[in-house]
Amino acid sequence: MNGADSLCDTLLANDIKVCFANPGTSEMHFVAALDRKPELRCVLGLFEGVVTGAADGYARMTDRPAVTLLHTGPGLANGLANLHNARRARIPMINIVGDHASYHLPLDAPLTTDIESLAAPMSNWVRRIAGPEDVVGSVEAAYRASLSPPGIATLILPANAAWGKVESAPPNRLDLPAPSVVGMDVVREVAEAVRNAPGRVGIVVSGAAARADCLAIAGQIAIARDVRLFSEVLVTRMERGIGRVAPTCIPYPIDAALELLDDIDVLVLVGAPEPVAFFAYPGKPGRLVRDDCNVLVLAKHGDDSHGALEALRDELGVRRSQPLPRATAPSDEPTPNGRLTDDAIAVMMAHKLPENAIVCEEAITSARRFFALSAFAAPHDFLMTTGGAIGAGIPLATGAAIACPDRKVFNLQADGSAMYTVQGLWTQARENLDVVTVIFSNRSYAVLHAEMRNVGVEVIGENARRMLDLDHPPLDWVSMAQGLGVEAARAQSCEEFADLLDSALARRGPFLIEAVI
Amino acid sequence: MNGADSLCDTLLANDIKVCFANPGTSEMHFVAALDRKPELRCVLGLFEGVVTGAADGYARMTDRPAVTLLHTGPGLANGLANLHNARRARIPMINIVGDHASYHLPLDAPLTTDIESLAAPMSNWVRRIAGPEDVVGSVEAAYRASLSPPGIATLILPANAAWGKVESAPPNRLDLPAPSVVGMDVVREVAEAVRNAPGRVGIVVSGAAARADCLAIAGQIAIARDVRLFSEVLVTRMERGIGRVAPTCIPYPIDAALELLDDIDVLVLVGAPEPVAFFAYPGKPGRLVRDDCNVLVLAKHGDDSHGALEALRDELGVRRSQPLPRATAPSDEPTPNGRLTDDAIAVMMAHKLPENAIVCEEAITSARRFFALSAFAAPHDFLMTTGGAIGAGIPLATGAAIACPDRKVFNLQADGSAMYTVQGLWTQARENLDVVTVIFSNRSYAVLHAEMRNVGVEVIGENARRMLDLDHPPLDWVSMAQGLGVEAARAQSCEEFADLLDSALARRGPFLIEAVI
Repeated sequence: MNGADSLCDTLLANDIKVCFANPGTSEMHFVAALDRKPELRCVLGLFEGVVTGAADGYARMTDRPAVTLLHTGPGLANGLANLHNARRARIPMINIVGDHASYHLPLDAPLTTDIESLAAPMSNWVRRIAGPEDVVGSVEAAYRASLSPPGIATLILPANAAWGKVESAPPNRLDLPAPSVVGMDVVREVAEAVRNAPGRVGIVVSGAAARADCLAIAGQIAIARDVRLFSEVLVTRMERGIGRVAPTCIPYPIDAALELLDDIDVLVLVGAPEPVAFFAYPGKPGRLVRDDCNVLVLAKHGDDSHGALEALRDELGVRRSQPLPRATAPSDEPTPNGRLTDDAIAVMMAHKLPENAIVCEEAITSARRFFALSAFAAPHDFLMTTGGAIGAGIPLATGAAIACPDRKVFNLQADGSAMYTVQGLWTQARENLDVVTVIFSNRSYAVLHAEMRNVGVEVIGENARRMLDLDHPPLDWVSMAQGLGVEAARAQSCEEFADLLDSALARRGPFLIEAVI
Repeated sequence: MNGADSLCDTLLANDIKVCFANPGTSEMHFVAALDRKPELRCVLGLFEGVVTGAADGYARMTDRPAVTLLHTGPGLANGLANLHNARRARIPMINIVGDHASYHLPLDAPLTTDIESLAAPMSNWVRRIAGPEDVVGSVEAAYRASLSPPGIATLILPANAAWGKVESAPPNRLDLPAPSVVGMDVVREVAEAVRNAPGRVGIVVSGAAARADCLAIAGQIAIARDVRLFSEVLVTRMERGIGRVAPTCIPYPIDAALELLDDIDVLVLVGAPEPVAFFAYPGKPGRLVRDDCNVLVLAKHGDDSHGALEALRDELGVRRSQPLPRATAPSDEPTPNGRLTDDAIAVMMAHKLPENAIVCEEAITSARRFFALSAFAAPHDFLMTTGGAIGAGIPLATGAAIACPDRKVFNLQADGSAMYTVQGLWTQARENLDVVTVIFSNRSYAVLHAEMRNVGVEVIGENARRMLDLDHPPLDWVSMAQGLGVEAARAQSCEEFADLLDSALARRGPFLIEAVI
């Protein structure tokens, strides 16, 4: 056997059975090894941003390391934006980046690049495999690194490490690291700060703390102690919907975020970093809480958030039987009709969402209403573009659907962002994934129009218009989707949208609705 | 005025009048400044790989620095693969990468990344602007760096350097650096090696030496001294066609390259690096010349290749009136008919190519025949994917058409590679560029099938097939192009292709032909 075979065996022995891939010549021995392992499913993306974004979606839904196969520096580079999102999502991932044979690098052949320098900013761990005998140890180390938060592990595989012969040996099944238990000293300090707060207390959840079990405990504390419950501005995966506790999402627009947190005197972080402004604006602060706000960490990402929240609840004397502030009121919005708007889509989507759906959201300006309404929708998982690098939505939905073939996946997708990884629709078609993509077709980088106003520009001239508007020519999403093998249709009214959504719900397989708003 | 205004003024004072762009929030002040400079034309790409690739094409055709505007680390990351190609093309480029305000970086907001680490592998020069007063000096330094080979200059523009106030001052018009003159000692050493060669001599040209004036001198030497004339495997821009000297391109397939260079005893490099194998293969060498071949550098990239070739010609006693080995024989291929093949397309393209066209070639396996035939086509410029990072063709054609609005641009484009930057078709539509894209639709990464055979795999299994073939579902290029605003049609026979090519030649504006082969 060769190094590539031992790589595949180590992955399979640790229940890694999917590889998101776009290989090149330097990975041909690895591809040949994969060909000898039909139990390892290879999913092709026609661009590496699709590969890494799909791996992110897969890891979010399985809580297991997702594996990618990328081709040298440029292939990695193409996947970096969605690796950035994955790193900010704090999910486990192992990227295998093929490189030239080690002895070929000094020749500076055209594809030679400094892969380490490219990988470092979007990885938490980087290692170059020394040779065929180093493959197994390196893959094992990458596996452990991916599951030791934060978890983006990038492994550089020289071609001669892949093709070199190794002794055959049974692969090791590795133990999973357990989350770190939060000490009672930390819990008591937080409890005391909450009890003695001069005014309002807030809790911010993210990561594991945004799952239903943790939200329930946080919700008990919130209602019993009059604490506000927030979620990080962008959340990796939130269990949401009727019967669940619904935190208030910290908004992206800075003024709204500052206003929301203005009266908070004590802020407790559970799996979330301290909230900060997405961007700097002249004359506005970067931290979103007041300078005199007491910010405490109950649990970092990778800590046992569930145990820490239970301990805090008990320490605060909140009964375990404390009823929850569950979202129970079904939306009584009237059925929208007439001209299609982003808000009307939000109402219809929340109303018609089937139970146990997965919702990916990269609608930027267009689905803010949906988040609020989704608290009253059927229980579902909600996934967001965590790092702010656009082009996550289509791949995330793709990977989530690979992970959960029996669940309906919806992708609420801005048009400008969708263009970044439009190739992912083809993977949805090839794998026959049950994904409904809703394109919010406003033919504009609408968020940037708002940001221009934020910097004081009221009248947009020719150059700015040419950079912020996508209307000349308009993108025809139905044609594009069909060109990529995905059935699609256009909705220009609420009635058309409702009909298309109903038919998408009644069928299986990828479908795209261009919602002209 | 602010820093962003001073940046624009410095560019304009140095005749930089096009900015290829995809801005984000941190660049809003720069966008506002651009809005005050209507003489600076902003060209939007709906993905940064389009932006950097188009800038490359623009620089290749103007020999002037192309400017890009990119948004933070992820925006740069998306543009890196085509920056890699641009660096390998050794063209001048200035990338302006917006970043957070400097004081915002310690907060680690979601889009915070190590831009320097990302930029370094694909840049020859990187600088972070210190503040608004540092903008002009930094842009001037970047301009000089871009014109001092090799020339990819990346400038990081913090938002507060863009929005900070500066004193108004007239911008400087900078001198262009002259190419370095090659010393007569070098020329004499090369001449002596050529004269005393025990066997066959070869010259490899690239860069400026691949233009018609240099090729003519190299051709005089070649015919007078029985020297073989080669071009680098991938060339930035070659002036080619009837009446011009046509070097033999060093082939990509390693066995063919080794055979071509096997009898060369002295190899003279003019603006080209020593030829090496694109990839390493077990048991095959990395250097393409024999170990005992004497390799000499007549001119490095950035040296005065024209002067060096003239001096070598004179030193070798070759008359200035030496007739050229011009390519004059028109192709006598019969007109292809029936089933469409890549070779038939090459014959038709070479036959019908209009004078002064620009041909971009990213056909990978499908247009090798075209290069040979193009020696007998009407005079044209020929541009290739220089770094081996796929996804260059559509953007290169876009940038070349922006640079040369009065010339017809053709892009011979592989389907798998086209998917990487398909968004560039939209820019061709928006700017109404006179680009004819020919998609070689073989629904396969055909080069990888060949490479699998190179590593000894004769039978392709399910996993490999799923990574190398693009046939389930087939890509419908006509729908995709129309979705992006570009008229398109499909050819399945030679007759259909000829008709579509004729109609594309008779009209202006972007057009795509899906050639099903």
